[in-house]
Amino acid sequence: MLPVLPDFPAGPLDFYRKRASFDWKKLKTFIETEEVVKFQNDLLKVLQANPVFHDDHTSQTLDEKRHKTLQRAFSIADVDLSSISTSKLNNSQRQLETLRTMAQLSPESCAKRIAGELFTNALAIQGTEKHRKLIHDVETRKIHGCLCMTEIGHGSYTNGMRTTATYDKDKREFVLDTPDFQAAKCWAGCLGKVSTHAVVYAQLYIDGMHYGLQGFVVPIRDPKTLLPFVGVTVADMGEKIGLNGIDNGVLIFDKYRIPADCYLNKYGDITPEGDYINYIKDAQEKQTIIMGSIFVARIGVIGAMECYGTKALTIAIRYAAVRRQFGPSDGEEVPILEYQSHQHRLLPYLSVMYVARFFSSYLSEVVEGLFLDSSPKQNPESLSAAAAELHALCSASKSVLGWMVRDAIQECREACGGHGYLKVAGIGHIRDDFDAVSTYDGENHVLIQQTSNWLVKLWSRVEAGGQISTPLQTANFLSDASRILKLKLNATSVEKISQPEDILQAYQWLVCYLAKQTKAKLATLTQTQGPFWARSNTQVFYAKSLSTAFLHYVALRHLLTKIDAAANIEVKNVLLKLFSLYGVWTLEKFLPTLYQGGYVQGPEATSLVHDAILALCHDVKDDAVSLVDAMAPPDFILNSVLGASDGQVYQRLKSAIFMAPGALGRPSWWREVVGWKNKL
Amino acid sequence: MLPVLPDFPAGPLDFYRKRASFDWKKLKTFIETEEVVKFQNDLLKVLQANPVFHDDHTSQTLDEKRHKTLQRAFSIADVDLSSISTSKLNNSQRQLETLRTMAQLSPESCAKRIAGELFTNALAIQGTEKHRKLIHDVETRKIHGCLCMTEIGHGSYTNGMRTTATYDKDKREFVLDTPDFQAAKCWAGCLGKVSTHAVVYAQLYIDGMHYGLQGFVVPIRDPKTLLPFVGVTVADMGEKIGLNGIDNGVLIFDKYRIPADCYLNKYGDITPEGDYINYIKDAQEKQTIIMGSIFVARIGVIGAMECYGTKALTIAIRYAAVRRQFGPSDGEEVPILEYQSHQHRLLPYLSVMYVARFFSSYLSEVVEGLFLDSSPKQNPESLSAAAAELHALCSASKSVLGWMVRDAIQECREACGGHGYLKVAGIGHIRDDFDAVSTYDGENHVLIQQTSNWLVKLWSRVEAGGQISTPLQTANFLSDASRILKLKLNATSVEKISQPEDILQAYQWLVCYLAKQTKAKLATLTQTQGPFWARSNTQVFYAKSLSTAFLHYVALRHLLTKIDAAANIEVKNVLLKLFSLYGVWTLEKFLPTLYQGGYVQGPEATSLVHDAILALCHDVKDDAVSLVDAMAPPDFILNSVLGASDGQVYQRLKSAIFMAPGALGRPSWWREVVGWKNKL
Repeated sequence: MLPVLPDFPAGPLDFYRKRASFDWKKLKTFIETEEVVKFQNDLLKVLQANPVFHDDHTSQTLDEKRHKTLQRAFSIADVDLSSISTSKLNNSQRQLETLRTMAQLSPESCAKRIAGELFTNALAIQGTEKHRKLIHDVETRKIHGCLCMTEIGHGSYTNGMRTTATYDKDKREFVLDTPDFQAAKCWAGCLGKVSTHAVVYAQLYIDGMHYGLQGFVVPIRDPKTLLPFVGVTVADMGEKIGLNGIDNGVLIFDKYRIPADCYLNKYGDITPEGDYINYIKDAQEKQTIIMGSIFVARIGVIGAMECYGTKALTIAIRYAAVRRQFGPSDGEEVPILEYQSHQHRLLPYLSVMYVARFFSSYLSEVVEGLFLDSSPKQNPESLSAAAAELHALCSASKSVLGWMVRDAIQECREACGGHGYLKVAGIGHIRDDFDAVSTYDGENHVLIQQTSNWLVKLWSRVEAGGQISTPLQTANFLSDASRILKLKLNATSVEKISQPEDILQAYQWLVCYLAKQTKAKLATLTQTQGPFWARSNTQVFYAKSLSTAFLHYVALRHLLTKIDAAANIEVKNVLLKLFSLYGVWTLEKFLPTLYQGGYVQGPEATSLVHDAILALCHDVKDDAVSLVDAMAPPDFILNSVLGASDGQVYQRLKSAIFMAPGALGRPSWWREVVGWKNKL
Repeated sequence: MLPVLPDFPAGPLDFYRKRASFDWKKLKTFIETEEVVKFQNDLLKVLQANPVFHDDHTSQTLDEKRHKTLQRAFSIADVDLSSISTSKLNNSQRQLETLRTMAQLSPESCAKRIAGELFTNALAIQGTEKHRKLIHDVETRKIHGCLCMTEIGHGSYTNGMRTTATYDKDKREFVLDTPDFQAAKCWAGCLGKVSTHAVVYAQLYIDGMHYGLQGFVVPIRDPKTLLPFVGVTVADMGEKIGLNGIDNGVLIFDKYRIPADCYLNKYGDITPEGDYINYIKDAQEKQTIIMGSIFVARIGVIGAMECYGTKALTIAIRYAAVRRQFGPSDGEEVPILEYQSHQHRLLPYLSVMYVARFFSSYLSEVVEGLFLDSSPKQNPESLSAAAAELHALCSASKSVLGWMVRDAIQECREACGGHGYLKVAGIGHIRDDFDAVSTYDGENHVLIQQTSNWLVKLWSRVEAGGQISTPLQTANFLSDASRILKLKLNATSVEKISQPEDILQAYQWLVCYLAKQTKAKLATLTQTQGPFWARSNTQVFYAKSLSTAFLHYVALRHLLTKIDAAANIEVKNVLLKLFSLYGVWTLEKFLPTLYQGGYVQGPEATSLVHDAILALCHDVKDDAVSLVDAMAPPDFILNSVLGASDGQVYQRLKSAIFMAPGALGRPSWWREVVGWKNKL
């Protein structure tokens, strides 16, 4: 093993580290590769050398948070990534790893960077040569951009957007207008304080004719003064639950005029006379290209979710290994990780983080293989089919994994007891920042419908006797549905029910069963309620469950492929335990459906699943600290008194409490406390 | 109806208000009584007249939060409650309603007051005549007190406390000492900045003999200067996830000497010569009295939980009734409350708030009937038995209802979409403040074991052929276990399975089944693992499920009693719907166990439960706004742009955004944004 991964300092965590069944360095190298680990280490040194990246948990005002985030985002962009490491990673890999590191060190500056990229990506994809200069100006920070789609009154339903762009052919200008506050653009990151330009989506009107939602690049603030132009009202949205370093904003146009060149004219254009020209022969091409850019962003979000969750799990599991409370006899207290209840609270979520880590990497690879400039050209039909499948996978991943990570973070917070409530524990802000994920980049309950829609469409083909062969081959087993639907649970032992093939078979059955049920219910309801309400009334227990089961299946199947590729037998075995734990723990939630469809019968199935979960939790607990070690960010990034790799919980807690500004002094208003009684 | 409840202003919420099946004023009066409503209204006017109770959502520093909380707590205590209303409530009812109002208006000043009461209650219960003066000094604010039990290294396991109090008979003093940081007292509210005195629990040693954990009242800061005395180190614990108005503190003694009179000597004393005298003939009496004071605090917490949850539900349901997105045809958008998925996310939690509201009132009444000074005297045995039963109920309520309220708040936050992430939505701080509840006043996973321990003990009696008759009669049905365990689900329709008697029967079966299973597993494991590990390894799927099922059963049974007492038929009917929704929705989580134990068989049971949940959600949705109206705090207290009673979501959002300080201006560091490029 290279000296790239030093041992952890000796301390209270040794108790479990010595019991681990595998070498955490081998697992980490398997997850990350040696080159990535080397790059991460070198990047960390650069970041640690800059005071702006140090965080002492002291409370900051909203303005200070914004300021610090800006400084961090600018500082990280200033780093010449190509020069900082001897690692053989190429440039795009360096960018990706830097983004991962930033997501854990400073989610806000990471989000700020992504908000800026939404602007340049929109220009690159929908703009033409004349818009290129703006991309360069962003890179040299002459201007700052953001992307405005969402309006106060409409988020998920983009057709409902009401900002208008009316073409004035005499002046060759567009007149942007916001009819009322509900039509104000909002939530765009970096809009509130910093952006000088915005890509704005507005309903295009020419001579009273409506041409749909179109993109424009709009100068909104003077780059020399940061003051908004006349006709533009731009306000900061104020304090939020988290991510307060980001200046989300509101944008209102009062008959604001922009030159004709502001129209992003790659897929259509307007002649000086006001004729609209559509450049796209095949609308599919535009759709696929736009989907590609959505995938890149969404997979970034999915990757970030795992980063958040892993941080929380690192803190809670290390704390659980150090914290001792109660014991079988007086004077002998045991780590709380030894308690069944505590294991059951945390360890399934540890398996979730491993599943999420590998699956988000898989999604990245798929996007890279299909949509990036260097990807081999596909024919439009197969690319479109792959985009639809990837959309189904990303939609379910963001929502299903997102809900699990949300619950994981909360469980970690509570599992750290009272001390977990302290800011210096480092979990509160993970939760607050993560919380935005549930509702941005596609509201989860809306998004998850995309997956079931795709599956129901495939099921219709199955029912029509067709074979399923999708580009990513995630649902090909549906072709075999009639056989699968006849299957029953054939496990009669805890060991058997925990086997990968048994778990995957159960999930194949669930997907087929739920697809069939959903399709049938949809058909019945459509007759009486019409398609809109039929779809709405098929979500709970049907479509949503279908998407969830499918995501579990695909993510587990991918994990198994990864496990097969592991060279080290101990690494393979511990990952198999996580596979089984994730599998049986998620299957437990489907027990009623498994009974309903007859896949299981009688009392034993529940007992087997329950016993398997407990046995696997018990099996994993001695490995838990090392499993966390292999995924955890360095202490500098984790920045938690409860979760540091040396396990010195109490020393760190003491330092943090006593070193906080004002911890020991009287408040400035102490006389009010002493003197209030005089008022009585 | 009295003019005490004015109509809500006309607006977007009329759509649902007009569809309600009942009169919200009648329901509110049924929940609260007319006298309470009158008092609440008058109290509100007093609070609104004081600028210190107005909150504009602008961000505050930690110090500002502390300062404001102090001012609020002092101001509310200054109000002469007896003079503010013509309501016929007696003094203790006025105190209770004020506390409820404060829990919703300013949870931190409410918590501050409770922290102070922990001090005076400890003096009243464990102190003697010589300590009375201190209580009076607190009332006149000459001194400020807090209660110190928890240490850095020990919370749930009180035997592990390590602060020592050594009696020095020569000087007639105690020497308090904190051996190391893990033994530092911590988390006490008001300790960090304000308290001049603390009740401290320390291990008493006299002449090298150990006399257990004992209470002392300890002067820690000079009341004239608020500076700590020499020998006392007291630090603020710093920023937390929420409740930052409270100054939680750390307390360390360095061989600190206090006079002998500081010992709280009601139940034992120390002679000048150092002999320990135990005054209690019957330890049961002391235990019961201390339990009584724990109940009062815990039921206060349970009541506060419902206050938090109801606020969140009010916001989310009103917003869901106003927010429109998508629709069956272009130009026709529907309120998101119409979507099945949205109903299923929110409405079961609405039923939880009703169950919690009535059940916490019930618990209060029980405590009042048993433990307050005016209560009729019980014999010690029956009082002790009632205390044990009440402890079982409170423990399960705090944990099970607590987890449901936690999930409710999070669901409400997400159900409000992106706008729910704004501070002005008012949900973020509910979650942050509520979050403390999970781990204070007894860690939930530790607490819930108290309930299962009690039930398993009863079950042993059942197995020995005994009859169960507990003072509060919550578990008497266990006597009938052999009949109950033979029962099967006899519902074959959605209507039938939603009937109160069917739901209660299912829960009776569950409690019997899980008690039997838990007892059996405990017995088996004890043989191989000993009692300590046997109990730990019987928690998941056994003991915890048992406590949960029992809590649902008792809370539902109580709700039914309340419903029977309702005079108005519409009120009765809507509460019955909530009963059924809570019943079938919570039963769904037990479906695997119901299959496991043979109470249900075959595929239909799952379908029936699922269909019943959806039918009830649909049934409740037109009543949801009015159900919220009957429970909601006034707008001044709710303080949410999304949840105000006029439904003017967008106007309020606009005002809030534009009126926030600095919303429209440049940041002070704007030159850094403009000039950073020069650094490149």
